[in-house]
Amino acid sequence: MEGMSDVERLVALEEIRLLKARRDQAIDTKNWELYHSLHAPHHVSHNEGLPRWEGPDAMIEGTRKSLEGRRSSHHSHTPDITFESPTRAKGIWGMEDLIFDENTLELLLHGFGFYHEEYEKVDGQWKFVWRQLKRTFVLTREAGNLPGQTRS
Amino acid sequence: MEGMSDVERLVALEEIRLLKARRDQAIDTKNWELYHSLHAPHHVSHNEGLPRWEGPDAMIEGTRKSLEGRRSSHHSHTPDITFESPTRAKGIWGMEDLIFDENTLELLLHGFGFYHEEYEKVDGQWKFVWRQLKRTFVLTREAGNLPGQTRS
Amino acid sequence: MEGMSDVERLVALEEIRLLKARRDQAIDTKNWELYHSLHAPHHVSHNEGLPRWEGPDAMIEGTRKSLEGRRSSHHSHTPDITFESPTRAKGIWGMEDLIFDENTLELLLHGFGFYHEEYEKVDGQWKFVWRQLKRTFVLTREAGNLPGQTRS
Repeated sequence: MEGMSDVERLVALEEIRLLKARRDQAIDTKNWELYHSLHAPHHVSHNEGLPRWEGPDAMIEGTRKSLEGRRSSHHSHTPDITFESPTRAKGIWGMEDLIFDENTLELLLHGFGFYHEEYEKVDGQWKFVWRQLKRTFVLTREAGNLPGQTRS
Repeated sequence: MEGMSDVERLVALEEIRLLKARRDQAIDTKNWELYHSLHAPHHVSHNEGLPRWEGPDAMIEGTRKSLEGRRSSHHSHTPDITFESPTRAKGIWGMEDLIFDENTLELLLHGFGFYHEEYEKVDGQWKFVWRQLKRTFVLTREAGNLPGQTRS
Repeated sequence: MEGMSDVERLVALEEIRLLKARRDQAIDTKNWELYHSLHAPHHVSHNEGLPRWEGPDAMIEGTRKSLEGRRSSHHSHTPDITFESPTRAKGIWGMEDLIFDENTLELLLHGFGFYHEEYEKVDGQWKFVWRQLKRTFVLTREAGNLPGQTRS
């Protein structure tokens, strides 16, 4: 990347990975204050099967609702991060999510795909400005293609 | 981190990630010699639902017993590592573990949560000095909330 | 590693992680052109339970066939990468794969293990030259040790 030394790029990569780590922490512990702090005011989330969320408030409102009465696991893998400038980068992460009923721990959704993301350095801090989940496939209780619990 | 250059911090991050990689290798291949070598003599493990293990010997004795007749998968994700000094760091890792019966490969436990860890550089080598698994939730055969095998 | 500065090694580590990221992207999106481009002409894959594939063409032919009518998830974790020279490295990655029937989304295989890999820098680009999957264990529909779908 022109305009960045090797060390500057390495440091930025660590900062973006850390941003992502804290997003996955925040969603699975339902720490919405932390979640909010990771996104720029002009952040947009547009995930398959969900409305387009403009700004962190709309995103958190939607995410919080979709996880009411549920437990989640969001794990992100092997990032592919490229820089467009010293303050702008794109990322693709492999992902897997599991959503369970909070009371019965019945599995409701098991999904796979890739997060396509964009990041900007705002006032010295990397933040999310765009996120789109592109599913490769998803299994749901509703579709009847998940295994059920066995009380033996 | 005061007292560390960017490159020193980047190198230390790689060393701590490698330490973690080898811990996950060691537990799932039951390589207890390797497992031992990754921990400082004053290491303490205190995981939810398990006794507090002081020192690597007690920890390995307990871990080995809990995996007798079982196969395990421990995967760790998107680390959040921060330095308190050039020789002391803290880490939070997303985690997922699966424990299977060795003979029937029946799933016995499927767990989710975060590892909270501390590391120290001892004689030039980063080692674990503290580990605590904080579960977000866990499914077990015993609790009857896991799917069972289907012989079709 | 003699012959590499800290920064050179850090940059090479990022390049190898990116190579791996794109391999996992390519297989789960069935992007065989991308998959091909990540491997040196002298690449060899020799995975447990599969024939030895010499060269990218044989490997892609075999991989493509094994995934016909199927959806896959290949996730790789906590790499253990060591350099033998500035242009040669070895890696061990934790792995988990899931293979589903494309139409019914029935789970056909759920596998665990470690990828043992070798990489070479060829014309300024890191490429795969060797890959071997060593399973710790694997569950299959055929063996009857996986849960089945419940249409409730």
